Amino acid sequence: MSNQRDIIVREVGMRDGLQMVKDIFPTDAKLRWLQAEADAGIPEIEVCSFVPVHVVPQFQDHAEIVEAGLKIPGLTVSALVPNARGAARGFELGVDKLNFVLSASETHNLKNVRCTTEESLGRLKDIFALRNENPAYAGIDIAGGISTALGCTMEGKIDPTRVMWIAEEMLKLGVSEIMIADTVGYANPALVHDVFRQAADLFAKDVRISAHFHDTRGLGLANVVAALNAGITEFDASMGGLGGCPFAPAATGNIVMEDLVFMLEEMGLNTGVNLEKLISIREIINGGLPESEPLYGAIARAGLPKPKMPEMTG
Amino acid sequence: MSNQRDIIVREVGMRDGLQMVKDIFPTDAKLRWLQAEADAGIPEIEVCSFVPVHVVPQFQDHAEIVEAGLKIPGLTVSALVPNARGAARGFELGVDKLNFVLSASETHNLKNVRCTTEESLGRLKDIFALRNENPAYAGIDIAGGISTALGCTMEGKIDPTRVMWIAEEMLKLGVSEIMIADTVGYANPALVHDVFRQAADLFAKDVRISAHFHDTRGLGLANVVAALNAGITEFDASMGGLGGCPFAPAATGNIVMEDLVFMLEEMGLNTGVNLEKLISIREIINGGLPESEPLYGAIARAGLPKPKMPEMTG
Repeated sequence: MSNQRDIIVREVGMRDGLQMVKDIFPTDAKLRWLQAEADAGIPEIEVCSFVPVHVVPQFQDHAEIVEAGLKIPGLTVSALVPNARGAARGFELGVDKLNFVLSASETHNLKNVRCTTEESLGRLKDIFALRNENPAYAGIDIAGGISTALGCTMEGKIDPTRVMWIAEEMLKLGVSEIMIADTVGYANPALVHDVFRQAADLFAKDVRISAHFHDTRGLGLANVVAALNAGITEFDASMGGLGGCPFAPAATGNIVMEDLVFMLEEMGLNTGVNLEKLISIREIINGGLPESEPLYGAIARAGLPKPKMPEMTG
Repeated sequence: MSNQRDIIVREVGMRDGLQMVKDIFPTDAKLRWLQAEADAGIPEIEVCSFVPVHVVPQFQDHAEIVEAGLKIPGLTVSALVPNARGAARGFELGVDKLNFVLSASETHNLKNVRCTTEESLGRLKDIFALRNENPAYAGIDIAGGISTALGCTMEGKIDPTRVMWIAEEMLKLGVSEIMIADTVGYANPALVHDVFRQAADLFAKDVRISAHFHDTRGLGLANVVAALNAGITEFDASMGGLGGCPFAPAATGNIVMEDLVFMLEEMGLNTGVNLEKLISIREIINGGLPESEPLYGAIARAGLPKPKMPEMTG
């Protein structure tokens, strides 16, 4: 089935969502979530970030989760890393892919990882050096993520030229993928089309390009449509929209995986995902979350259309 | 300002929204809502439907509302009509525009107005005859609305060919506008692009074409993007997404006006609407609604981006 996917959707809620949750999400529920989402046909799951346990205690069980994920046939297990130290842990554990992320916004990067964007690029260089030191790590992909690429709560508008420059630098270092992220939900469909069109024209011949949208201001799926129109076929999302924004407490987080899959499948695009199985995973996640963390999602609320729409032709 | 609008957004919550509300919305609050939304720059408001008071008691104050609306300079006051009897009332009151609506789904039309789609077209013919009888009515526009045009809870998929046939028949009768509606929230961006592209190719040279989307399954704004890409520039929406769907009790209603305006303006498209003034109208509406009728909206929940994004160039 995976050979026939038109669109790759990647679960990031286990990382981008859970990192926001103060209560520890039980390892057992995480393991069931992982297995269930792989069973539903999700091809890639970002399972954690490799950061010190005292910074994000939520990922203290990362070794167990990674190990379990790697046993699931066909699943790509990825993890976020901000620096070489985190990457070293990822290499040791043998994840399939490391997602290195920096911010296009200098101010945001300084706040988030305490160094300039240029210094972050230096860290990415160190990560590649580390990978190249050990032939056992050769098969581990490194993706370059550019956060706040479509706007920043601190800097406002971000110049697309700067985003392209960062992508170019990442490409020179050897990333297999460029991920462009609207970290704080500032994007709009016109900007998305513009930035992703530029990125596709410049880089699509060399690397995969993926999109990471937040639904903070309700434009998440509209932005997906704009990115699709720009030729993008890989999207991050999270179950139930898990993952708020620390700068907008009442705002929803990542785009909702169930709604994304529903939209894509209704559009006649094959995601390889079984939507009913996917929706049923909300129960597992709800079971592991404190009551103060609601899950979002229009499809879960409204239900699938009935009678089922016949297959679209053409 | 209205001369420079790129996009026309039309408020339908006062009709499509309130018709779903069982408690009578106070006339006084309706009048304040009307004035405030016109002040915010909304160019057209559908204020009621002309149906017997015993069918929809909510519109018992229609004469007062229409009269007040017609006094507001520059505002287009429209109303929905299902038949010649309703249209006669509209002509008498001198509304600016009558929106005649039938369903593309034969089953839905039979349930809703107890006649076939063909018979509904006959009613539209009667409405034009009525208008032509009296020179005083010559300036009143008649728009042709096609509901369930993108899917039906009873029939499922609707053949776009049928939608084009209805539009063609309406055009022959003399409508100034074709409104294509996703009444039950079954549309997806691919279908929207397909149907509106066909409609634009066939009819845009002769009439205005507008889109009416519901956000039942979260795809409302994504569908707007698809319609924009097909060249559509007129959209219905309702304040706070007022207007549920009787077939999906937990579902939200029309696309949210505030979110639509936010998206369009962020895209660099001028709606002529002051977003902050618009958002403040939610208070008036909340004050007139029973507590069981929540307003929706991502912008009202998350707030506008801060710092304010600088104007987009190009």
